[in-house]
Amino acid sequence: MTRKRVAVAGASGYAGGELLRHLLAHPEVEIGALTGASNAGQALGSLQPHLLPLADRVLEPTNLDTLAGHDVVFLALPHGQSGAIAAELGDDVVVVDCGADFRLADPAAWERFYGGDHAGTWPYGLPELPGQRDRLRGATRVAVPGCYPTVSTLTLAPAVAAGIVEPDVVVVAASGTSGAGKAAKAHLLGSEVMGNASAYGVGGTHRHTPEITQNLSSLVGGTVAVSFTPVLVPMPRGILATCSAPLARDLAGGLTAEEAHELYAKAYADEPFVHVLPPDQWPQTKSVIGSNAVHVQVTVDEAAGRLVAVGAVDNLAKGTAGAAVQCMNLALGLDEGLGLTTVGIAP
Amino acid sequence: MTRKRVAVAGASGYAGGELLRHLLAHPEVEIGALTGASNAGQALGSLQPHLLPLADRVLEPTNLDTLAGHDVVFLALPHGQSGAIAAELGDDVVVVDCGADFRLADPAAWERFYGGDHAGTWPYGLPELPGQRDRLRGATRVAVPGCYPTVSTLTLAPAVAAGIVEPDVVVVAASGTSGAGKAAKAHLLGSEVMGNASAYGVGGTHRHTPEITQNLSSLVGGTVAVSFTPVLVPMPRGILATCSAPLARDLAGGLTAEEAHELYAKAYADEPFVHVLPPDQWPQTKSVIGSNAVHVQVTVDEAAGRLVAVGAVDNLAKGTAGAAVQCMNLALGLDEGLGLTTVGIAP
Amino acid sequence: MTRKRVAVAGASGYAGGELLRHLLAHPEVEIGALTGASNAGQALGSLQPHLLPLADRVLEPTNLDTLAGHDVVFLALPHGQSGAIAAELGDDVVVVDCGADFRLADPAAWERFYGGDHAGTWPYGLPELPGQRDRLRGATRVAVPGCYPTVSTLTLAPAVAAGIVEPDVVVVAASGTSGAGKAAKAHLLGSEVMGNASAYGVGGTHRHTPEITQNLSSLVGGTVAVSFTPVLVPMPRGILATCSAPLARDLAGGLTAEEAHELYAKAYADEPFVHVLPPDQWPQTKSVIGSNAVHVQVTVDEAAGRLVAVGAVDNLAKGTAGAAVQCMNLALGLDEGLGLTTVGIAP
Amino acid sequence: MTRKRVAVAGASGYAGGELLRHLLAHPEVEIGALTGASNAGQALGSLQPHLLPLADRVLEPTNLDTLAGHDVVFLALPHGQSGAIAAELGDDVVVVDCGADFRLADPAAWERFYGGDHAGTWPYGLPELPGQRDRLRGATRVAVPGCYPTVSTLTLAPAVAAGIVEPDVVVVAASGTSGAGKAAKAHLLGSEVMGNASAYGVGGTHRHTPEITQNLSSLVGGTVAVSFTPVLVPMPRGILATCSAPLARDLAGGLTAEEAHELYAKAYADEPFVHVLPPDQWPQTKSVIGSNAVHVQVTVDEAAGRLVAVGAVDNLAKGTAGAAVQCMNLALGLDEGLGLTTVGIAP
Repeated sequence: MTRKRVAVAGASGYAGGELLRHLLAHPEVEIGALTGASNAGQALGSLQPHLLPLADRVLEPTNLDTLAGHDVVFLALPHGQSGAIAAELGDDVVVVDCGADFRLADPAAWERFYGGDHAGTWPYGLPELPGQRDRLRGATRVAVPGCYPTVSTLTLAPAVAAGIVEPDVVVVAASGTSGAGKAAKAHLLGSEVMGNASAYGVGGTHRHTPEITQNLSSLVGGTVAVSFTPVLVPMPRGILATCSAPLARDLAGGLTAEEAHELYAKAYADEPFVHVLPPDQWPQTKSVIGSNAVHVQVTVDEAAGRLVAVGAVDNLAKGTAGAAVQCMNLALGLDEGLGLTTVGIAP
Repeated sequence: MTRKRVAVAGASGYAGGELLRHLLAHPEVEIGALTGASNAGQALGSLQPHLLPLADRVLEPTNLDTLAGHDVVFLALPHGQSGAIAAELGDDVVVVDCGADFRLADPAAWERFYGGDHAGTWPYGLPELPGQRDRLRGATRVAVPGCYPTVSTLTLAPAVAAGIVEPDVVVVAASGTSGAGKAAKAHLLGSEVMGNASAYGVGGTHRHTPEITQNLSSLVGGTVAVSFTPVLVPMPRGILATCSAPLARDLAGGLTAEEAHELYAKAYADEPFVHVLPPDQWPQTKSVIGSNAVHVQVTVDEAAGRLVAVGAVDNLAKGTAGAAVQCMNLALGLDEGLGLTTVGIAP
Repeated sequence: MTRKRVAVAGASGYAGGELLRHLLAHPEVEIGALTGASNAGQALGSLQPHLLPLADRVLEPTNLDTLAGHDVVFLALPHGQSGAIAAELGDDVVVVDCGADFRLADPAAWERFYGGDHAGTWPYGLPELPGQRDRLRGATRVAVPGCYPTVSTLTLAPAVAAGIVEPDVVVVAASGTSGAGKAAKAHLLGSEVMGNASAYGVGGTHRHTPEITQNLSSLVGGTVAVSFTPVLVPMPRGILATCSAPLARDLAGGLTAEEAHELYAKAYADEPFVHVLPPDQWPQTKSVIGSNAVHVQVTVDEAAGRLVAVGAVDNLAKGTAGAAVQCMNLALGLDEGLGLTTVGIAP
Repeated sequence: MTRKRVAVAGASGYAGGELLRHLLAHPEVEIGALTGASNAGQALGSLQPHLLPLADRVLEPTNLDTLAGHDVVFLALPHGQSGAIAAELGDDVVVVDCGADFRLADPAAWERFYGGDHAGTWPYGLPELPGQRDRLRGATRVAVPGCYPTVSTLTLAPAVAAGIVEPDVVVVAASGTSGAGKAAKAHLLGSEVMGNASAYGVGGTHRHTPEITQNLSSLVGGTVAVSFTPVLVPMPRGILATCSAPLARDLAGGLTAEEAHELYAKAYADEPFVHVLPPDQWPQTKSVIGSNAVHVQVTVDEAAGRLVAVGAVDNLAKGTAGAAVQCMNLALGLDEGLGLTTVGIAP
């Protein structure tokens, strides 16, 4: 089989670099154009020195000329820039957008949280949602989920879908800093973030809130109330999402931790990248760093009357670039796991 | 006035070291005996090299002989060891226990979470609770609160006490590692905790859960349901507690973020060590490291129907040693703030 | 005695914040004008939230109007901006410059490493150098040393001055990130510096090289060759300088580690802020964080024929703001240690 | 071709886990017995949760029974334990020892730095040393180099071998904490190492000193004096070695940075895993994390009269497990790079 020719727009950022790390490990692709904005003309080795095999590649500008002629184009661009480019790429090209532009189905939600015109809605790149894997097979446009929505949705989905909790969830997610990107901002300096934990987007104002709501609501045919708070903690990668919801009021006889664990284990039994840990072993982000795996655990807090579930993900891997490659594989009809691993790098 | 002579039992640990750091800054005390267990006989300089003025002090064994003859004895011992020692210290000695032994009023809660016999209940060292400051004035026994309960309670108390939320709270607290102490454990190695976030004590099993429940319930004359999850994050000090609860069902006309902020600002207007930040400024742990201050912020998530409040504390300072000194000041009739600061060390 | 009225120009940066942290603990000063450039008009609480007692202070612009009328003016400005301001402040005002402008005596060295015109040379604020304390008493202008030069000089001075090493030293200094300042730069993002060690200014190109050379050369009446390499490591504060030099060729009978330690102990016996650790205890930065102390240790590597000494300093405290306050105290005729501590904050 | 059956003795530690991470990516091996000491009987998933594909494997005890019947046995055991086991494994088995037991040729050096009897000397697993690759091809016993010696040797070898520096080198190496292993020790707790830099083994007492000396001396036919100081810094992985030496006294016309760079570039032109960065780009550890690459840069400090070179390595990858796999490939006659990558994981 001929290797697929793949371009990465936005190759100098964190998502772009992680895409290339994944693509370098993929047996069926050939890395084509790498593009950037202000960095066009620079060697990738000076921008992403960890990608040694591509050190001599020079970034080209992001435009139709450079992106044309590829089988797949990954877009790792600032929010709002994907629509215009995607519109000009042919329908025969698989376009995988790592940005937010095409994730939300509700234009009002887009407008409220992102502002500006809603670009549209593409097949949502979370194959683990019911029916979603089939929608992604052969797709030519894919919207890669946000990092927080990926782990929050996967950590809560079995409970929400089964109706064992009220549709009223609380998510507090401790996140590394790379999710905030590579643009220089004073509050993201190492001097600021090391030794420091801080909440942001509190009160439901973070842009990933409507996306989590959309995902969980799709499981129940109604609106799931989502209280989402991201917390920045001193590590470069990884998200640990602590999620909970009241046990369903109509649960006859309650729910034990064992029953909850069994439900989760069954729900993900066939999923290659979602792993429910053995009872009493709790997820930690370092187990999934560099990998496409999500580790999940669940229990029941009887005194508080809540189900509590915790999920861990690498925000750049399964949270962004790994999911993008997984979706590309589905779109191209390849084995879903090509170029991906469930092995993390620790310590 | 003669300086008060103060002993510290357990001077080689993190709580003990932080007590000494505070006491070195206190104008009305003289540091007497410093005791340890396996470290007795060693110079403090080899164990706590940051306490330079005490470098030549030698640790004595922890017993009645070494602790006798002081006006104040701080106990920074493993849980379960304070009772026996305290029983033998005279009623004229102020004993401030940084351990858990005397925090809980309910023997059943003690037995469930700690095991063994309940040692008893001492005045609880959180002067910011209603009526509590008066109980601490002139007390000769004080139980210093746990670090998580301190910040969780202070972050939720105004809302719970005012009845603007249902008595059903969720606390997810990102914590530095020093709360776990200085004993060598493989899962607390730097190699394990750096670059890693992990939840523990999930499902209401952490020992601080009944203490938070006790504190909040005392505000409403009923039981407040508490879902508490601690998350270990890669920093040595500090806790950031993200707290929320459903808005009270009987709130006529809802509650705005401004109203919630105003309520909090009023509640803590006269408190020297609890600071409600200006609207839209959210707490971060680095602002309180080394200080006795707690920074708090609150908002309302209308879509989720919840009040969300965030608090930051230095687990070793206001979370342990600072609170201990604050309570000692009250017990001795000194100015409550002697030896304490609201200035953190950042970055 | 009337408190001295003190202004801080550049109060929004790391050096400025640390100056204020020190000044808040100083019993003989009153904090006057706080100035900034782009941050003028903002409340300090939004910029330095750890300085709670000053949260409501508003930054004024940096100019003669705002800085006039103070007994002391601290300048914590970008290099090259101190000269013009200082020139307009009267000779009766004590001006303490935390920048580099007035540190170097040799205009050629200034021009080579900083470029532009050399502003001049002020009394150098390292009282531990021979004769230097006397020069600082009553001074009205003080150039605060750079952070690397402070620790490198103090770690090597006793050996160099005694002639027990060749005038040919190697310094490799692991540094936290705050020395690079608070300006947003992509390579200083938390995502970049966490989990990462990197050398910079290699080959003698760092601007602190001529300052170390100047200090050490002043001890021997000739030029000391200095090979200096700074290494950025993932911590916000602190420098650990590993220093070595060949044992002097004319040392009859060699030199033992004990002799080297004794020499160092004697050299710093009367220094309040330089502490030679007991034999076999090696400095670590966390012991000096927040303190004005420098911890030093020395040994002899017989096989390599070198003396090896290690020093630890808090780059913002004794490395900048602590030294500035120490020099202010000398300039004003106050007790040299006012507002300063040798107690670090650990863990 | 049949896959080679490979055992790992010491699978629960950091070196063992990293070996398995590499072996999982190796197309020509089948992972056989995994053994441990106190952890025998436990599932690997509870000890190395990042190695998801092996989660259900149970550790067996380390002995001849469990290790028999493999083509390759990796030993990742505490120093001193490899000799006895290796003696009983047949000569047809490839034994790759990640410990120190067989690295040193000089029994006196062994005794001085490690104590006890010298087990012997095996082919040294640094193929980049002159002639060494040929000695490793087809070998049945390999001693994997120490992490510090790997990066120190590779960073200095071209200069030492070419005689452009005096045989008198200084190495200061900033290291992450995983090199110290997974055994619980109080001074390696996260609370101790985060925010902290500390030197240890100062004065030539670190056990890797004689190994660096042996390597560099082998290049010149005489003894190279080595002053080596390791510095522990707050990161889990990676070593950055700052190395320097006086320019050779007999260099006619001196040496420029360009000439030094050219020499290094030529020396490593054919090495798959040693990469000399383009001029002015300096190594950083994050570029090599997870990879088998060593990044090197060199310059000349004219004022100090020294050549300065910096190298970065992942202590667990090319510094241990990657080198072990590289040597196994050579021993088995496989492609040297199988299972290895030059792509790091960043940020």
